[in-house]
This record gives sequence, structure tokens and C-alpha cells, in this order.
Amino acid sequence: MMCNSSYYFVKSENNPTKDPLILWLNGGPGCSGLSALLFEIGPLQLKIAKYNGSLPALELNPNSWTKVANIVFLDSPVGTGFSYSTTSQGSYSTTTTSAQQSCSFIRKWLADHPEFLSNPLYVGGDSFSGLTVPIVTQHISDGIEFGIKPLLNLKGYLLGNALTDGYLEMNSKIPFAYGMGILSNELFESAKKNCGGDYVNVDPSNVQCTNDLDAITLDILGLNYEHILEPLCVFATPKPKEINFSSIIRSPPHTPGFECRNYGYMLSYYWANDDGVRNALKVRKEPRQEWMRCSNDLNYLSDVRSSTSYHVYLSSKRRYRSLMYSGDHDMRIPFLSTQAWIRSLNYSISNEWRKWRVDAHTIGGYTRTYTNNMTFTTIKGGGHTAPEYRPKECFTMVKRWLSYEPL
Amino acid sequence: MMCNSSYYFVKSENNPTKDPLILWLNGGPGCSGLSALLFEIGPLQLKIAKYNGSLPALELNPNSWTKVANIVFLDSPVGTGFSYSTTSQGSYSTTTTSAQQSCSFIRKWLADHPEFLSNPLYVGGDSFSGLTVPIVTQHISDGIEFGIKPLLNLKGYLLGNALTDGYLEMNSKIPFAYGMGILSNELFESAKKNCGGDYVNVDPSNVQCTNDLDAITLDILGLNYEHILEPLCVFATPKPKEINFSSIIRSPPHTPGFECRNYGYMLSYYWANDDGVRNALKVRKEPRQEWMRCSNDLNYLSDVRSSTSYHVYLSSKRRYRSLMYSGDHDMRIPFLSTQAWIRSLNYSISNEWRKWRVDAHTIGGYTRTYTNNMTFTTIKGGGHTAPEYRPKECFTMVKRWLSYEPL
Repeated sequence: MMCNSSYYFVKSENNPTKDPLILWLNGGPGCSGLSALLFEIGPLQLKIAKYNGSLPALELNPNSWTKVANIVFLDSPVGTGFSYSTTSQGSYSTTTTSAQQSCSFIRKWLADHPEFLSNPLYVGGDSFSGLTVPIVTQHISDGIEFGIKPLLNLKGYLLGNALTDGYLEMNSKIPFAYGMGILSNELFESAKKNCGGDYVNVDPSNVQCTNDLDAITLDILGLNYEHILEPLCVFATPKPKEINFSSIIRSPPHTPGFECRNYGYMLSYYWANDDGVRNALKVRKEPRQEWMRCSNDLNYLSDVRSSTSYHVYLSSKRRYRSLMYSGDHDMRIPFLSTQAWIRSLNYSISNEWRKWRVDAHTIGGYTRTYTNNMTFTTIKGGGHTAPEYRPKECFTMVKRWLSYEPL
Repeated sequence: MMCNSSYYFVKSENNPTKDPLILWLNGGPGCSGLSALLFEIGPLQLKIAKYNGSLPALELNPNSWTKVANIVFLDSPVGTGFSYSTTSQGSYSTTTTSAQQSCSFIRKWLADHPEFLSNPLYVGGDSFSGLTVPIVTQHISDGIEFGIKPLLNLKGYLLGNALTDGYLEMNSKIPFAYGMGILSNELFESAKKNCGGDYVNVDPSNVQCTNDLDAITLDILGLNYEHILEPLCVFATPKPKEINFSSIIRSPPHTPGFECRNYGYMLSYYWANDDGVRNALKVRKEPRQEWMRCSNDLNYLSDVRSSTSYHVYLSSKRRYRSLMYSGDHDMRIPFLSTQAWIRSLNYSISNEWRKWRVDAHTIGGYTRTYTNNMTFTTIKGGGHTAPEYRPKECFTMVKRWLSYEPL
């Protein structure tokens, strides 16, 4: 292989020999597996404290998914995190090729770690991984069908606020924003009528619709799309190329405050680029690749428009277990669009929409299950990467789902 | 007068001789003015710490509205907080009579404190006060028309998540819940169709509609209506009569955790019933009336169905300034219903729906102004008593509005 995949493997704190093994693919594309490890579902997280130039401290995550599962966090596609290629051809990838590489990676990893071959295997991820995870899962499934050795013990896949059908996702932002109180009733009704409910494929000569969409754009501009109730902070990182336009116009860029989640993202840069940390993570020394939480200069082509056909294959034809969760305050991939693509596939419902509880006081969200072993659930109050915003709810969810308990 | 109104007056920390004077009426009916003072807009709040039997401590509220206004917090109607009557006739009240009493109170208070007669006067409140505040304001306005001395310097009124038109408010809960991700798309569409969009006046023989409403009731049961993202905690107070059904079935009732806002409510009971505090507040000693944050055994009749006609009179005919704010995560009086009654009055819009900012990172909510000097605004992420959930946003809002600045 011309590319070298880096990954972070964390054993289950419960029973690593029996607990499921999850191959976790981060979104972006270009976000490192360390981002999921440190901010979402891993056992360690950065301690939020003023950065003073020394190594940022870590603390335990009480809601780590590694309390119930072994997890391999993969830096994928190539160029992400510490993954690299030494050839220019190897550094180029597409959704299709990176899915193939991730599948090869887990086969190879399991061949090297045969003690995990009998553990139930799941593929998981969120955001942009909505396009890759189902393809990787299908490749694994195909490998099993073809009898490729070692035989993988694939049980299913799980996805959070997953990019699936770009049209539905774009089109659901306006009804989502209306439901969340961001648009006025009058403007929403007007846009619905003038644009005929299609806010994506708009005829430019339809002035009434384009005017409404312009007004809507103004209303949603400045919101934090990842969680509409959180502040939108300047993405201040030490990497000048990562400073986006909105930070450039406020010069010099400010360090985000502790109320900003990207304060932690900034700390992760210092942490992961510390030589001691890199040595401990066994990162190669030469050539030194700077770690970025999310890289936006990958040599990458997104060549898959929709992953719905993979869901149909995996869920309806092969009946693999699947969990689709949606942080319900995310405007990047609103829960409405995940509901919509599932509805479009006409799966039969086995257990109707109902609330599920985290504890006596707290509703975790709403869930519905289908006869093809798919579970859809919302995470009440969750954002784009739901475990980052509602760790207890998401841990409860994954723990129950992995152990075949109803949410 | 047969009834004795208690109140809490806090001078402005800015310029008490010039700053506006707000007469604040709490909701309920039956919630003490101290509740607004300690949990919403007053200068002091209870320090949340484990109750050990001693007097709960207070701390400063950095977002107190008294930084820009003088506020009289009134215990109204009679029986609320420390207000009392020594006769059985005096202890009976209605929305109409209590509004009359509140108007008499502020006239008398200003006659006794003539140094505040020239300050701009506003009447404010939230929740159930949506029925009384406009009536009190109209009585004051009528008094000015009739030349009743002393002449009050009434400038307007302000209301948060205000009960206004019970039908609209009941009927908006279902679209609100759908927009917030609580109901499935299918159930909402079905109910809309089967119930014809009217979820209040339902024909009991319409089985499809009543079935849908039953399913909806199940989905919303267990939510915290005051803020749909917060936990719903047992209302544990030391008063057995305040323990509601859901706490009775879990016996003994638990003390709420710090994550529950009613932990603070519990502390307020111990604080306000402490003899030292009562002496400092100049509460009469005999007969000793136990203070409750919200009393639910008032001898009270709600005799006003809707306050929209008062709004029409005050805003459109008299053109008093008015501010209607809605915490947008409240399901008791959803922002949709406040929008709906304002829309039903066909006021002309002077400044279209737009976001307003608290600071560079934070959108406070969305606002719209009308030519009759009414401002509607949402408080993004706010609950039923919005300043309790989003203090900085609400302080910014009231500061700007009182000083005639646009939100």
C-alpha cells in the first residue's frame, strides 16, 4: 500500500475479549480519529484550562464508549490526522477508494490481532462518514459473502447526524430552522409557497422564491450550525490557513473563550503536536506531519452522492443491525432529513416513535425501530456530533443498543 | 382595603432618580414577587449549595435588571407570598379585582414615594401575568385619562411568555413540539389532517383525531414544559401539600439534585421562612403566614379569557411602548402562540424579523417591531421564565429596550 493509516486503539474497560469492536471513522472529510477520541466517545478528554504553553492536561471521560466496546479510531482518508502517503498518487483519494482502504485496514488489523476476530464487529462514524461507513460496511459484508479470510464477525453499523442524501439534508434546513424558532411564520409560509417546498433546485427567475431564500439566509447567518443554541466562535487555531474569513475580518484573531468548544480544539492541536505525545502515540518522526484536528487541504474527491442504496442493501437485504442517531439541535444534518430518507425507503416499523429515558428525570430523545433491525433515535439537545453535547445520553444509547436492549 | 399587599422594592444601581420604575407582577397565579427577584431579574440569587439546615446564602446576580431600572416586585393576588387578608371576603380575588388592586397599589406607592413619580413607569410580568399586566396597564392609562392624581408617568409594559389567548396557546403546543423534534413527522401530519389543525375543540367522535392526540400526549408526557431540554425533577419541597402526584408515587420524595432548578426553589422556602430574613423584609409577625414560592391554594377565580383586547387598546389606540418576549424552548406558552396572537391583530410591521446579538459570538434571538411601538422578540434557548434560563440575553434585551435602542 502506498498509504499508511494511523489509528488509535482503545480496549474496552469492561470485557475486551467479549465486548464489541467498533471501527470508528471520523467525518470532515479530514477530521482525525483523535477528534472523536478526545471530544466525543473516547476515554480521555482535554481538560479545559487556560493554555500556558505547556502540554494541555487530559482527564477521564465518564461517558466513554470504551466502557462497553473496543474501539479503533482510524485517521481516514489519507492525509487525515497522522495518516500519510509518500507518493502523490497515494495521497489522492475519493469516498470510494477511502472506503476500500478502510475495509482493507480493518481486515489487516484483525489479521494482526486475531484475538478480536470473534468479537461482534460494528462500523461507526458521524457527519461526512454517513457516506463512507455504509460503503465500508458493505465491503466487509461482501468479503464475508465471498468467504475472504479472516472471516469478519460483522453485526452492523451506527451513524450520527450522518450525511446520507445531500438533497434532503439541504432541503430540510429551512423547515428545521422554522421549527426551532429561527424563521418567522410568515417568511416560512411564503418560502414554502413561492419555492414549492424545494429550496435547493431553485429556478433563478423565480424572484419571489429567491427573495425569500435571501431573507432566510440572513436570518440563519451567524448561527452555530453544529448546535443552534451554542455561541459561534472564531475558529482560532495556531494554523493561519485554518483561520477563516470571519476571523480574518477581526484582526488579530482572538483566542476563543472557555464557552467555545473550539477552545478545546485549539488545545488538541498543542497536545497532539507535542513530541512526547507523538512518541507515545508511535507517530513516525520523518517527515514530520503536523496534526490538525480537521484538515481542509486533502487531495480528496467526494464521488458518492447518496448512501441510501447501501442502507437498503445492508439493512433490508442483509438485515444487519443499524443505529441512526440524530442530535436534534444540529442544523448541518438536521434530524428531519434523517427521518426523511428513512421514510423514503418505506421500511416497516416494528416499534413506533416513543420517548426513551436516560434516568427518571431525563428524556434522552425519541426513537423508532424497523423490522429490518434499524433503530432511529434523536438525542434531545444534541448537536452535530451528539456525544460531544450530550455525553450521558449518547453513552446510554450506545450501551443499550450494543447489548440488544431497547432504548 | 381589606387586603395587605407585600412587595419588595429594589432601587436602580445606575441612576435611581432617572431610571425607569417597573411594577413587576409574577405569574402563577400565586407566585411571589420574591420568585422573580431571586430567580429571574433581581439583584440577589440563592447560592446553589447543599442545604444543611442553616440559612441558605445569597449571591449577586450579574444580570440583574435593577442595574438599569427601579423595580417593585409585588406579591399579587392576595394570598401570594406575604400578601394577606384578615377577612374571608378580602382573601377572595379574581383576575379583574387583583388587577384593580395592583393598580391601586402602585398609585398609593407612588403617592407615598413621590420622588419616583417622574420616572418612566412600566408594568411587567410573565406567564399568567399576561392576563393581568395589560389590565393593570389599562387601569393606569385610564387613570391618566381621567386626570386621577398623582398623575402616573406610564410609558408602556413588557411581558415574557405571557398567557394571552388560551386557545392559541393550547393549540400551538403540537406544532411547537413537532418543530422541536418531539413528535414524528408522520404523527404530526396525521394529527394535522385528522384534527383539521384544531387540537383544542375536538369532536369526541372523531376517533382518528383523538387517537393521534393520545399518541401525542404520550410523547410529550415527562418533558419539562418550562424548558424542553431541561430535566423534569420531582417538585420536592418541604410542604407536603406541594408534593404532586408524580412525587407521591416515588415515596419518600427525593431532594432534587443541583441539576434541577427546583433545588433553588427549595432553598428559597428555607430562606424566606427564616425569622431573621422575615424581620429584615419587615414581614408582620402575627398571624404567621408561611411563605411559598408559588401557592396553589389561593381563593382565586380566573375571570379573563384573553387579554388581546387590552393589547389592542394599549398598543394600537394609545401607542404605549410594549415588549413581548418569548423564551423559545418553553412549551407552556410557546413562542408560536405569541407570534400568532400578534399576527391576528394585523399590526403593521415597522422593522422586519431579524436576529439580534448579545455579543459577537451570540445571537440573542429574533425580533420584529410594529408601528404601534410593540416589539416582539424570542430569547434563543430561553424557557418559560426566560431570564432564569438566559440571564445575559434577557438583561441585554431589557437594557436596550428601556433605553429606546433597537434590539
